[in-house]
Amino acid sequence: MAAIPSLLGRYRAELEEALRAAIPAGGPDLLYRMMRYHLGWEDEQGLPLTNAGGKGLRASLCLWACEAVGGPWGRALPAAVALELIHNFSLVHDDVQDGDVERRHRPTVWSVWGAPQAINAGDSLLVLGRRALLGLHDEGPSAALRTGLPTPRVLLACRILDEACRELIEGQCLDLGFEATLDVSPEAYLEMIGKKTGALLEASLHLGALAGSEDDALAMRLARCGRLLGLAFQIRDDILGVWGASEVTGKPVAADIRRRKKSLPVVYTLAVAQDRDREDLLRLYAQDSLSDGDVARVLEIVESSGARDYCQRMAEERIAEALAELEGAAISSAALRDFQELTIFLLERDF
Amino acid sequence: MAAIPSLLGRYRAELEEALRAAIPAGGPDLLYRMMRYHLGWEDEQGLPLTNAGGKGLRASLCLWACEAVGGPWGRALPAAVALELIHNFSLVHDDVQDGDVERRHRPTVWSVWGAPQAINAGDSLLVLGRRALLGLHDEGPSAALRTGLPTPRVLLACRILDEACRELIEGQCLDLGFEATLDVSPEAYLEMIGKKTGALLEASLHLGALAGSEDDALAMRLARCGRLLGLAFQIRDDILGVWGASEVTGKPVAADIRRRKKSLPVVYTLAVAQDRDREDLLRLYAQDSLSDGDVARVLEIVESSGARDYCQRMAEERIAEALAELEGAAISSAALRDFQELTIFLLERDF
Repeated sequence: MAAIPSLLGRYRAELEEALRAAIPAGGPDLLYRMMRYHLGWEDEQGLPLTNAGGKGLRASLCLWACEAVGGPWGRALPAAVALELIHNFSLVHDDVQDGDVERRHRPTVWSVWGAPQAINAGDSLLVLGRRALLGLHDEGPSAALRTGLPTPRVLLACRILDEACRELIEGQCLDLGFEATLDVSPEAYLEMIGKKTGALLEASLHLGALAGSEDDALAMRLARCGRLLGLAFQIRDDILGVWGASEVTGKPVAADIRRRKKSLPVVYTLAVAQDRDREDLLRLYAQDSLSDGDVARVLEIVESSGARDYCQRMAEERIAEALAELEGAAISSAALRDFQELTIFLLERDF
Repeated sequence: MAAIPSLLGRYRAELEEALRAAIPAGGPDLLYRMMRYHLGWEDEQGLPLTNAGGKGLRASLCLWACEAVGGPWGRALPAAVALELIHNFSLVHDDVQDGDVERRHRPTVWSVWGAPQAINAGDSLLVLGRRALLGLHDEGPSAALRTGLPTPRVLLACRILDEACRELIEGQCLDLGFEATLDVSPEAYLEMIGKKTGALLEASLHLGALAGSEDDALAMRLARCGRLLGLAFQIRDDILGVWGASEVTGKPVAADIRRRKKSLPVVYTLAVAQDRDREDLLRLYAQDSLSDGDVARVLEIVESSGARDYCQRMAEERIAEALAELEGAAISSAALRDFQELTIFLLERDF
């Protein structure tokens, strides 16, 4: 198993504290309980949990980007909170939309409290995320840790986040649309994940850099780097969705194939498979559901198409482009090393 | 039928133009088609429609408030667009959550395109609404019509809208929660509709006034007035949900009772009914569904409790408080007349 990159652990305590502060204490108990449950802080009964949350990739990258361009990372904390809440909004709704009953080894919000309330939990995460971003303007508890950004910078941050959310939802719409057709090209697929996963990671680095420096060209460079990282991350996720071991990913074996998901391995195979492989794949993916035997046959076809190598190569190419962006950038060598460590993790991780 | 108040028609053309401009032209066609359908501009096939949209109450009140405090109403147009899109976000998700198949005499978005894509349509309306608000900062196409607000005012507007969205979703969560219990007091119910309906109407007048004047005390006064109006509006809606004629409301007869909705007439009746009426009501509302005979019996109990008079009185009291707020305010007499006309409409409308 690949080692967790240090940048993912570095800000964890302060990030969780800031996330907790972004969730209202009053209001309907159920709404905020669903969030605390989803974020891994509580079980279904509201009792405290530890270590059940996500990796905090977007928030950590945002704070890292702020430091990388020379800022104190605390200045980007409101943006990091916003990104994390908004990412989790998309997960909660995604689980409702896909009918997934499990995430991170735990029942999904909708499977505990029903789809209608889970929709509210997602909506609220989106709104609280958006609200948290305005904190960029405020002074922190300690002025050394955080001085507020000027209002025009905060408005720029709002625009960046809103655009990312727009793309994120467009990507989700495209993704669901792909489920109803077998006519998805690798290019269309890559465009979709650029929106669904790339846009928010682009915003993560963009917002962090914007909070840490007034060098907008540098921030744009980091933004591009974030999008490439997002693509690589999603492609690696697709690989794990087909070949990941269920005890580490927390998902059933070949989960994406069982759900007839057109992730990159399958999209690629549809584009290159010939003769009986192609016919079988089209026939099986046109069925309403797949038996264990069907799943095994699809896996065999996908394996023999060379999809795994293709996908890994696509991920590696994007990482190489991202590293090339950074190598020309005015960031510290420590920050560059952090990023390199992260990319190795992303390419090798099995969870 | 009460006459449509002039303030609801006054800004219609410019508002629709601005709303259309807030919806991206590119992106996945389905996502934006669902919106144009829901907003009443297109049919299910994407062919143009006229006059199938909503009343535009929130947007119109926002523009009215801007004029009332002495501003050119065009300056508040981005806020009006934001409010209308966000209101429609809540309707699209509400229909999914309630399983309602019809709204404004047309199939709901989810019943045409399925719940997963309808969730995306709602999410996107929320994000586009939030994004539209940032237009408060921009210059309009004609400087006479609109000069951008200074950035601190725009940030304040963002905070106001985010708070309203937070409350709106809290209200929706409470409302759904009420469906699972018979223990809802009129006070708890009024708190819920204060959030679910009052908060966004409060923001409508608040944002309009903020765009039109620098007098923040005046804006707060209009904001309070908006919340009271929202409460009255919702209570009147509850009356129509029980006693409204289906050919004008576009909803089935006694729709709210058939769905065992605990709207104010029923909540009030639960608080005051005695003996057999109370027992019957509790028993019928504890059933999984109601037959036509059951609906008739519930209607009889609700009628005899005096709920209709109670509800109408509650609505009238809030309107009286709202008018009292305005009478002390520095707004034009023409604006005051507009508002009076609107309140008469709200209290008498049968659709």
